[in-house]
Amino acid sequence: MTIIRMIGVEDMEDIAIGGAVLGTGGGGDPYIGKLMAQQAIRKHGPVRLVDVDSLPDDALVVPACMMGAPTVMAEKLPQGDELLHAFHALERVLGRRITAVLCGEAGGVNSCVPFVVAAATGLPMVDGDGMGRAYPELQMVTFTLHGVSATPMVLCDDKGNSLVLDTVSNAWTERLARAATIEMGGSALLTFYPMSGAVAKRAIVRGTLSQCAQIGERLRATRAAHGDPVAALCDMLGAQVLFHGRVADIERRTEGGFARGKAMLSGVDEWRDHSLHLDFQNEFLMAARDGQVVATTPDLISLVEADSGAPVTTDALKYGQRLIALAWPCNPMWRTPAGVALVGPRYFKYDHDYVPLGPA
Amino acid sequence: MTIIRMIGVEDMEDIAIGGAVLGTGGGGDPYIGKLMAQQAIRKHGPVRLVDVDSLPDDALVVPACMMGAPTVMAEKLPQGDELLHAFHALERVLGRRITAVLCGEAGGVNSCVPFVVAAATGLPMVDGDGMGRAYPELQMVTFTLHGVSATPMVLCDDKGNSLVLDTVSNAWTERLARAATIEMGGSALLTFYPMSGAVAKRAIVRGTLSQCAQIGERLRATRAAHGDPVAALCDMLGAQVLFHGRVADIERRTEGGFARGKAMLSGVDEWRDHSLHLDFQNEFLMAARDGQVVATTPDLISLVEADSGAPVTTDALKYGQRLIALAWPCNPMWRTPAGVALVGPRYFKYDHDYVPLGPA
Repeated sequence: MTIIRMIGVEDMEDIAIGGAVLGTGGGGDPYIGKLMAQQAIRKHGPVRLVDVDSLPDDALVVPACMMGAPTVMAEKLPQGDELLHAFHALERVLGRRITAVLCGEAGGVNSCVPFVVAAATGLPMVDGDGMGRAYPELQMVTFTLHGVSATPMVLCDDKGNSLVLDTVSNAWTERLARAATIEMGGSALLTFYPMSGAVAKRAIVRGTLSQCAQIGERLRATRAAHGDPVAALCDMLGAQVLFHGRVADIERRTEGGFARGKAMLSGVDEWRDHSLHLDFQNEFLMAARDGQVVATTPDLISLVEADSGAPVTTDALKYGQRLIALAWPCNPMWRTPAGVALVGPRYFKYDHDYVPLGPA
Repeated sequence: MTIIRMIGVEDMEDIAIGGAVLGTGGGGDPYIGKLMAQQAIRKHGPVRLVDVDSLPDDALVVPACMMGAPTVMAEKLPQGDELLHAFHALERVLGRRITAVLCGEAGGVNSCVPFVVAAATGLPMVDGDGMGRAYPELQMVTFTLHGVSATPMVLCDDKGNSLVLDTVSNAWTERLARAATIEMGGSALLTFYPMSGAVAKRAIVRGTLSQCAQIGERLRATRAAHGDPVAALCDMLGAQVLFHGRVADIERRTEGGFARGKAMLSGVDEWRDHSLHLDFQNEFLMAARDGQVVATTPDLISLVEADSGAPVTTDALKYGQRLIALAWPCNPMWRTPAGVALVGPRYFKYDHDYVPLGPA
């Protein structure tokens, strides 16, 4: 296997921050994600980040994830034990050993969670994920676009309960796992989408974890050099600035197992007298400036602090924060008809076609 | 194994009716239960009803059940296939063959459902169940009183989805299975509480299926002889007549995966100018005559047609029906402190201690 780099304790800070940028408001609090992974790496040692192309075709690759409303995750810090339980339970169901760990989605928590498993098991971590960002529902992965079944899937809670799901579609996996997650207290840990190395080579979004690390590193370096962190982000991501403003209103509720809501920013500087409206279901789904839609899922929309470029997740939004809204194009797999059907605005009940964001 | 009797197509009619009497308003529509079991017995042949004492101690005994609101079961007739799927999936989880089928609860459907499995697999059916009646929640079985875990448990729906649950308590099994059942459309099929023959000998309510058959047979014989079917029931069950009246009001809703509601009867004949109020959560939980509680769970409360003695489930209650309310003592296991804690009136939020019903 080709080792891209070794991931140590310090790297997790960058990966968590970069994950939160790609997390588009969801994917969990990077502080929590970082702590979980750092604890595991301190105990078990660094993790090998490997190139998917160097996996044997008959490798068994499994993503590990946290599921639930980010608002709940922050109050119910997962223990590594549940994750390992889910991991080994899936091995028993499959009747064979997992050979590499994968990341389900980029996010402050979900870019870090698989490192807990990789560190504890000593398995390599594949550089990539199933979204290149975060999405709220578990069928919303490029794995689904490539015909990979989400099941057999193992879902565990912090109390010691576990479920093995076997479903007729990935949409049914989402329905049943969401209902269980709500009952488990709003968050759960899971291993799902078991796939071969051959399938992983086709089905993953490549390089996501390297990208997370690079985002975190560059933000840190730019700040140290007294540069412009937001300009650095735009450069790295090919992102455009949608808006610069202060949080004027937030509406947030935990509903159906999701953190749903709206945020309104009122403009500052060149955006004075303008407003930006953002809708989210864990992740930002739609941005409208002065009443006009300017970006939607599957393209990425993120809020970052105007000064530091630090990503702000929807559960951390506070009245008066001075933020910059960025948007940038999603992975091309999401722009196919199947991709747009799975995660486009109409899936989320917006009466709006997906208009792909152009280059910045 | 000691075969008590062979159960053929005609016997299922009696068992379904007897099950519905013991079902205390819940446990499913006997017409549906009968059809399911008769179809299986016609196809595969009669089922051996065996004495639990004749099972080897190392037998593997597994109850098969339908879970959900009876109101939903009636509209979503289960196929035998889901049950067999749940049965064989549990065998795979346990890594060994099941050697006898058990009944989870007495009821119009749930006394019949295990016969579908027994007929199709050719396995013997143990004469007994986990309640001696029906209760709304799945931890409410004498198995729980004997420390048997509800899990590993397999839950299947009609679409082909299945879950394997492994929980820290039987109350958690109920919570997670209920949430899944709701998501599956309100009803599901399950195999759970796997136990050895040695445990079954201690943990089951004995003779329930023979009793169901006898109730059905005697009702039929009494009607044929132009006798008094209700008097025959009272004699057989040690039941007392709580009330004789007409349904004056029904309030029924499917809520939290249960059929919940109230029924009010206004008296006829010697009960004129009196009223009976019944509360149910799938099963009748409490009966109050003229505002005074006269019977509560865990004792059995059933409504039967005044003329025919035919049991009436809560989902079949209709305005104007002329019914007799019966009540009789539960199995002694339910009258222990642990039994009352599990299924007594305070569990169901009634501010009322359990007062055991005396002999008729």
